[in-house]
Formats: sequence, C-alpha cells, structure tokens
Amino acid sequence: MNAELVAVGTELLLGEISNTDGQYISQKLANLGINVFYHTVVGDNPARLEQVLREAGKRSDLVITTGGLGPTYDDLTKEIICRVFDRELVLHEASLDRIKAFFAERDRPMTENNIKQAYLPRDCTVFENDWGTAPGCAFDAGGCIVAMLPGPPRECRPMTDHRLVPYLAAMADGVIYSDSVRICGMGESAVEALLRPMMENAVNPTVAPYCKLGEVELRVTARAKTEEEAKALTAPVVADIRKALGDVVYGVNVDSLEHAVVAALYDKRLTLAAAESCTGGLVSKRITDVSGSSAVFLGGAVTYANSVKERVLGVKAETLASFGAVSPETAEEMARGVCLLTGADIGVSLTGIAGPGGGTAEKPVGLVYLGLCCGGKTEVRELRLGGRSRERADIRGIAANTALKAVLDAVAKI
Amino acid sequence: MNAELVAVGTELLLGEISNTDGQYISQKLANLGINVFYHTVVGDNPARLEQVLREAGKRSDLVITTGGLGPTYDDLTKEIICRVFDRELVLHEASLDRIKAFFAERDRPMTENNIKQAYLPRDCTVFENDWGTAPGCAFDAGGCIVAMLPGPPRECRPMTDHRLVPYLAAMADGVIYSDSVRICGMGESAVEALLRPMMENAVNPTVAPYCKLGEVELRVTARAKTEEEAKALTAPVVADIRKALGDVVYGVNVDSLEHAVVAALYDKRLTLAAAESCTGGLVSKRITDVSGSSAVFLGGAVTYANSVKERVLGVKAETLASFGAVSPETAEEMARGVCLLTGADIGVSLTGIAGPGGGTAEKPVGLVYLGLCCGGKTEVRELRLGGRSRERADIRGIAANTALKAVLDAVAKI
Repeated sequence: MNAELVAVGTELLLGEISNTDGQYISQKLANLGINVFYHTVVGDNPARLEQVLREAGKRSDLVITTGGLGPTYDDLTKEIICRVFDRELVLHEASLDRIKAFFAERDRPMTENNIKQAYLPRDCTVFENDWGTAPGCAFDAGGCIVAMLPGPPRECRPMTDHRLVPYLAAMADGVIYSDSVRICGMGESAVEALLRPMMENAVNPTVAPYCKLGEVELRVTARAKTEEEAKALTAPVVADIRKALGDVVYGVNVDSLEHAVVAALYDKRLTLAAAESCTGGLVSKRITDVSGSSAVFLGGAVTYANSVKERVLGVKAETLASFGAVSPETAEEMARGVCLLTGADIGVSLTGIAGPGGGTAEKPVGLVYLGLCCGGKTEVRELRLGGRSRERADIRGIAANTALKAVLDAVAKI
Repeated sequence: MNAELVAVGTELLLGEISNTDGQYISQKLANLGINVFYHTVVGDNPARLEQVLREAGKRSDLVITTGGLGPTYDDLTKEIICRVFDRELVLHEASLDRIKAFFAERDRPMTENNIKQAYLPRDCTVFENDWGTAPGCAFDAGGCIVAMLPGPPRECRPMTDHRLVPYLAAMADGVIYSDSVRICGMGESAVEALLRPMMENAVNPTVAPYCKLGEVELRVTARAKTEEEAKALTAPVVADIRKALGDVVYGVNVDSLEHAVVAALYDKRLTLAAAESCTGGLVSKRITDVSGSSAVFLGGAVTYANSVKERVLGVKAETLASFGAVSPETAEEMARGVCLLTGADIGVSLTGIAGPGGGTAEKPVGLVYLGLCCGGKTEVRELRLGGRSRERADIRGIAANTALKAVLDAVAKI
C-alpha cells in the first residue's frame, strides 16, 4: 500500500509551523509497513487543494489529510474531499452530540459554526476525537482509502495512534516491529565499523543507524505475520549488538538517556544531585523532565559565577585561583561539594567552556571537565567537545549526555 | 511570484526527520513577498522525483529543491532537474577546486564520488557552499526559476540566507519588512480583543498574531520600495501597539524572553540568581542558553527535595511542615535564600506541581508560586497553570516564562 500525506494550512506555507504531523504519521505508517511516497502541503485555497487531492487520489492507494477540519469558513478539507471523491456530506448526529457536550462541560457557548464539524462523508468510519472538537474519518473511495485527521499536533498524534493506526492495521496483513537500541559514548562511524558485516547482511530484520546529538540509535526492524514472530526475529540481533558494542548501549526501547538514568537510580534506591557550571541547569532540567524524577533527584546547584562555586559548593578559593574554574580540580570539588550539600548518593559536576566566546589556546571552547562523586570517591574526566560547526547548544547538549551516561555507568557498578 | 518547495529524501518520508528546511525557506520567502503555494516531499526515487519536478515546473514560477546534492549514487536531484528542464550537466572547475581544498584542509582523502558534486547545470548561478561540500545553484529555465540547495539544515540555512535570498532579492521589486512585537502576560484572545480594530483595518502594514507557549507574537509587516520606507510604515503601528498593550510587551525584534532578560540586567549592571523546584533548572538553562549570560547570571539552586530547600536555601523546616513545599511562604524563603546564598541583586524562585502526578483538590497540578526578591523585598505570586491538555512540559515552560517576565518587570522598575 502506497500512501500520500496531504497537510492543509496556509500557516505551513508561511513557515509559521513545521509539518510535524507529516513526520509523526510517517513513522507510524513505516511501522505498519506502508510506504509513504509523497508529502504535500497546500494552503487553505479551494482550487489548489482540489488539484492536489485529485492528483493524490490518482497516484496513491491511501491519502491521509491533516488540517482543515475546524469550524471556520477557511476549513475546507471535508468539502473538497467530498467533491473530489464524489461523496455526500451529511450531518452525523452522534458527533454533533459530542461537540455540544464538549461546550456544555466547559460551560462555554457553542457558536453556530461549530455544527459544521459534525458534517461527515456519508458511510465513513468516524474517528471520534477525545482530544478536541473536530472528528476525523476515513472511507474507501474505490481503490483509494481516504482518511482525514485534525491538524493541531495535540489532536493529530493521539488520533493517529488510537484511531488511524488501528483502522489501517485491521486492513493490513502482517506487522512491522522495531527495536530501538540506544548508544551513547561511541560515534556513528565507530558503531558502523564494528557492525558493518551484520548491517550489510541483514534482510529481516534490517539494522539501520540514526545519528542524534551525542548519541546513536540503531533500529532493528522485522516484518512478520504477528508481533510475536517479529519480536522473535529482532531479539537475537539486539542481543548480538549488545555483545558487540558492550556498555555504550544504554538501553533498548527507552525514551531517553534521562529516562534510563531515573529508572536505574530508582531500581537501586539511589539519589542524585548535580553541580552545573557550563551546562547551566541543563542536566537538572533534563532529569526533571521525567515525571516521577523527584523520587531520585534531590536537586543541585547552578554555579555560573566563581563566588557561587565557593559559597554553595565549597570549592576552595585557592583551587579556583591556581587551576581556574575550568579544571579537573574544580570539577572534583564541585562533585564532592554537591554530595555534601544535598546528601545525595551520587554527585555529578560539569565545568567547561561552552562558547562561542571565552576560549583560549590552552583552554579552548569545548573543553569540559566532568566530575562524578560516588561512595566517597570522585573521578574526573576531560572532554574535548569543540570543533568545526559545534555550537554552544551542541557542546552543552553533548556534555549533558556524557554526564548522564557517566551516572548510568556508575549506578550499574553499585 | 509563486513558489514551490521540493524536499528530496527518503528519510523525510520515513519520518526520521521533519522538513524543517521547508519551514525555514518559507519564512524567508514570505519576507521577500514571494507566495509559497506548495511544499512537496519525495524520496530518492528517479521516476517519482521527475514527475514531481515536471508538475512543479508547470504550476510554479520558482521551484526550490533541498537535498539530493551529495556524493552518493542516490543523490539525484541535479541529474533529474537537468533532464526535466533540458540542461546539460557540466563540470564546474572552481567548485571542484573548492571540494579538493575542503578535504586537503582536513587532511582527509577525497574519494572519487565527491567529484560528482562539482557537476552543475550549464550557465547556472553557482551558490558556493561555505558550510559543507555540495554547492547549490540556480538558473532560469524559461519562465521558471529553478534553485537547488543542500539538504542538511546546517548547510541549507546559511545557504538560504547568504545565497538564495540575495539571488531572489536582486530579481524582486520592493521589499517586505516585519517587526516582531513580543508579548508575555496576556493571552492571544485578550490581545486580539484590544487590537481588533487596528488588525482588521490594517492593510500596509498588516498586523498578525502568533501564539506560542506562554507568549504571543504580533508581526507587523509592510511592503515598500526600500527597507527604510517599509520601516517608516511599521514604526508608528508598533508604537500604537506598545501604547495599547502597555508593559506586557517585553520587546520588539528580540530573540527571546531570556535574551531580553540578559540584556536588561546587563544594561543596569544587575545580577540574578534562580531557585527552582518544579522547573528543575529550566529557568537557569534558558538564561544560560544566551551566550554572555555569565556577566549577569550568578547561578542558583535546583531544590527538588525538601531537605535541599532547607540545606541550600535555608528554607525553615517549620515553613515546609506548616505550609508545604508548594506554598507562598516557601517561595518567599527560596527567593530570599538564593539572594543571600549567591549575593545576587535579584532572586527568583519557583515551586509548584508540574504534574502529571502529585496534585490534590487543594493543590492541583499547575499550581505554582513565583517568588521575587529584589532590594531586600520579596513578593510572591500565585499562578494557576493547570487545565485540559496542559502537560508537564507546558506547565514548566509557562512557569519559566512568567518568572522571566517578572524579572524583566522588576529590572525595569530599578
């Protein structure tokens, strides 16, 4: 089945927003083994929308639109689709009741134009919208399946997961299943060099690398009749990858490094604190992005100024004077200091030069010291994160990743 | 002039990346007054790419491609464009020299397939690539201008700004100029209600609102012969907006709230420190995103655990016991505590319930207290940021925005 995604909205063509719906739906269709051949973005213009939909209907087996289902006069998707695919638009009473209930619950008056949202193509499958007012829908237009989803990502994403995917899965034979192996501490080319024979010979499952800031993801993807069969194909390959790469693999099918850190700390009932200079709170922010992190993360200090390093963390004035704020000695005292300050089991510290200014020949932009205090012992690592086209945000991001991975490794050894 | 953007790359159709190039170029074309009517994404497939380009050439005056200019066999954009628009592909010696120099500088061997990147359509305008190896180019295909840019955003963005925009601006008559008025502390509908007459009657300049997390942007856009004339049209409208909205306007043409905060502190030679509980370092992280923030930001404390609030910030045990961590009393002691701890002129604190867990009837998810200590006086505000479809990240983001705006207002009064 070959699919085309059509996003409708002038705001996309003005560059006010990016077509993240297209990306999201594409990922989900890839998981179902459905090939996406085109994304098209068109504005709220009836003639151009009609032309795009006629072309899509001719060249694709599945056309999925996002946007243009709302109550205002420039929301045109349903009307034009019904014209192109020759369907009548009829009032869907159950959807109207839901829209009325939506406004009643919120004690807000329902304006007349909201009724428009309850009109749907005759004999379609209705996608109830539990995340907004406009329902989605799908129908078989004789050789071409047409599906419509609301545009706002907060509605489009759950509607994709809970309405579109089950609708399409019921039509498909077989499934596509992927395991995601997450790697931090080894670059993409080193990963590829180690795994090249495996990756080149892989057919089912396939193994594909994806490079992210400061980490690499390997996606192991199998096609089979059932999810169980697909999982039986990926599992040994994932095991082989783990064996080949060792402990740079920080997790399989985990959301992020910070999720892995919180889970690992929680498993061993350990607590963490962070002392951040160059990352300025980024490590703390990322850990506390994880809901429930309060069980393991006590807090920490953002010690941008030297005076604060002294006052809050007890870094010695002579250490700062002799070695400077960006030094292994300072990183060590920061990590130890934040453990003493908070009573955490593990203290992690970062001090460095994030740039773009502040670098010298001796201490260039990208030089970062990472301290880790654990069980009364403190270890310091020197990181060299600078280089061509590495920006401030990259250096901070990679430093934070390296610190999170160091915590994970320390926890594994406890 | 009506434009179409064609992004080439299977990774876009698999949902591995989003078409951010399309968004970026669209914004720049909007600034030039060029209408974008379509975005199309197509994979590295010769037949489909050819069909898409033929269609684009027919319906658009300007076709801009991104991607497919690299050295590998599946980089096909130039070859297919030359076929569709009937141009010969010829070796461009100057580009070959640049590519050779690129590898020589880095002491890396240049593989044979890199020569492919130096082949360009005969008689095109070459867009030299200072940010990678593949040059871009443009030519007039008789009624349709065709331009090609590399796909990686790090190359595509500067190539758009420094190569494509000047090329197109030289062809256009007149300019489009926008002022961006940034607002925090008033919702979109309240802004619209106050400015409706102005927005409805505006023709040149136009006034359009854009809603972002925790803030609103008004874009005032004028079309004129020169930038000076356009600025003369927008300036009085911006002044009227400032007058109508008062101090919820935090800046015009500023990068972000955190940039405004750093600049305001720097102007008055004031220092700031942050004490964060529910935002877990987000305020500090955002301020330190700004290069040069070390001149005004001393640091602060991330006090997730109550014990750390006591130990680091000197919040009294009885305050925590009597009123709880999420209380005006705790927020007040946190703000004062971080000032005392760091010696900063201004201390800002946040304590609240970011969710999704942890809420009660009395203290629901989204309840946040914001403390501001300044000149020995501490003020506390209660924020209610919860509600339907407000997620943890939203609550944290809006709380951080509100805190940054409060700092800005305090600085303005000093």
